[in-house]
Amino acid sequence: PSRRATCNRGSPVTTGGFVSLVGAGPGDPGLLTVTAARRLADADVVFHDALVSPQVLALARGAVHVAVGKRAGRASTTQEAIHRRLIQSARRGRKVVRLKGGDPYVLGRGGEEALALSEAGIPFEVVPGVSSALSAPALSGIPVTHRGLSSAVLIVSGHAESAYRAVLSALPPGRATLVVLMGLSNRAPIASLLIERGWSPSTPAAICLAASTPAAATWTGRLDELGGAACPPGLAGTIVIGEVVTIASRIAARAAPLQPSKERIHAALR
Amino acid sequence: PSRRATCNRGSPVTTGGFVSLVGAGPGDPGLLTVTAARRLADADVVFHDALVSPQVLALARGAVHVAVGKRAGRASTTQEAIHRRLIQSARRGRKVVRLKGGDPYVLGRGGEEALALSEAGIPFEVVPGVSSALSAPALSGIPVTHRGLSSAVLIVSGHAESAYRAVLSALPPGRATLVVLMGLSNRAPIASLLIERGWSPSTPAAICLAASTPAAATWTGRLDELGGAACPPGLAGTIVIGEVVTIASRIAARAAPLQPSKERIHAALR
Repeated sequence: PSRRATCNRGSPVTTGGFVSLVGAGPGDPGLLTVTAARRLADADVVFHDALVSPQVLALARGAVHVAVGKRAGRASTTQEAIHRRLIQSARRGRKVVRLKGGDPYVLGRGGEEALALSEAGIPFEVVPGVSSALSAPALSGIPVTHRGLSSAVLIVSGHAESAYRAVLSALPPGRATLVVLMGLSNRAPIASLLIERGWSPSTPAAICLAASTPAAATWTGRLDELGGAACPPGLAGTIVIGEVVTIASRIAARAAPLQPSKERIHAALR
Repeated sequence: PSRRATCNRGSPVTTGGFVSLVGAGPGDPGLLTVTAARRLADADVVFHDALVSPQVLALARGAVHVAVGKRAGRASTTQEAIHRRLIQSARRGRKVVRLKGGDPYVLGRGGEEALALSEAGIPFEVVPGVSSALSAPALSGIPVTHRGLSSAVLIVSGHAESAYRAVLSALPPGRATLVVLMGLSNRAPIASLLIERGWSPSTPAAICLAASTPAAATWTGRLDELGGAACPPGLAGTIVIGEVVTIASRIAARAAPLQPSKERIHAALR
């Protein structure tokens, strides 16, 4: 990460600081929004989740890069510490980007950061991003809604039973496409729960791995095979459950994978 | 809309054509993805929904623009006719963009277009966009998930009772944030249905109108007031129902509205 000298020597000022809560999209820098790319190009400091891709971070050429997310290979920064650092940087007059994978307000604790900034009197904005919940399936050839198959999609966090049990227990089988984020390590108990609650074991299911990156891969199978699906460790994965998964094989013949952007978009966006 | 002469005189060729199913995001050209902006800049022809903003279409400077969506002020093009035109343009060797509001695979019938292209042997790709389902609430200050309030969000089409009744009847009150797209004209029956099914009449609700455009506005109130909420006709609206709506007033003090991009981003992206 490059460092800009002025970031380390400027004396603290109390005005002019601003925080942008920015969605980084699923990984491919081409799936950043135009506004997100600009905020990165203009940033003094970027506080980013560990899962944000290096190609995206490279757009913030003039900024100090600070990893604050989980999976950073060290003790993860607490949410409160993140709030303190955002507030402190803004009070020093910095243009601060808080960069989060996907969309900042979809299971990303962006709302908590917005509240903390608001309570501290720090001006901020949110720049929505392309959520993995919808784009990871799309890039695997799965439309989360499809006429005749599903007109609703339920997005749920799979990281803890307390997050998913109540809603997944309540939804009768097949009424909506299910998308589970951060649920790879709980894919077996999630599949069991759904089958217990009446979902057919043969319901089509998919795991979209590392969507929009060169490592992208898709597993498809049945709900009762989901728990045993082999997933390489360390990749982000989005689980999709529902009849819409069958569309993928029907369109696969001619669908060109969206090539991750290789061009230097930071230059073009200046 | 500008027209490029070569589009009208080139003799049909059978190779080289390609279709990009592109999400236009909620309206602000700054919320296009970088890849979407590039596909527009490179397109020979753009088939667009009526709701796509003129500022977004302006990025396709070298392309023929064809409105095929509903609300176009004339008889809307049938889905089958859209398929035929996409296929025909691709067979003539054109770089075709099918531009849809939000994300192409979220209640946008993009899956049907992908199937039709695949069956016709036309190469195509999907470029995911920022869905209004998640970004319209965010731009109104509402995170669709928030720790302690909601770890799940259900996105449903409100355009017809057949699309929403089964799933909304089945979901017990308060288990997920509800987001209803294309449901403005059914907001009264949707609210009644939920209250009938046990949702508290005082459940917070919001309507996010014309998100990310200069006409953006937000109505907030209670579920039992949703049916009577005054909405200017002709604006796109996203309905949000759930406790997360209360976050908006708590962060409103310091939240800067994301300014719709006014700069000429098409030049910068070339």
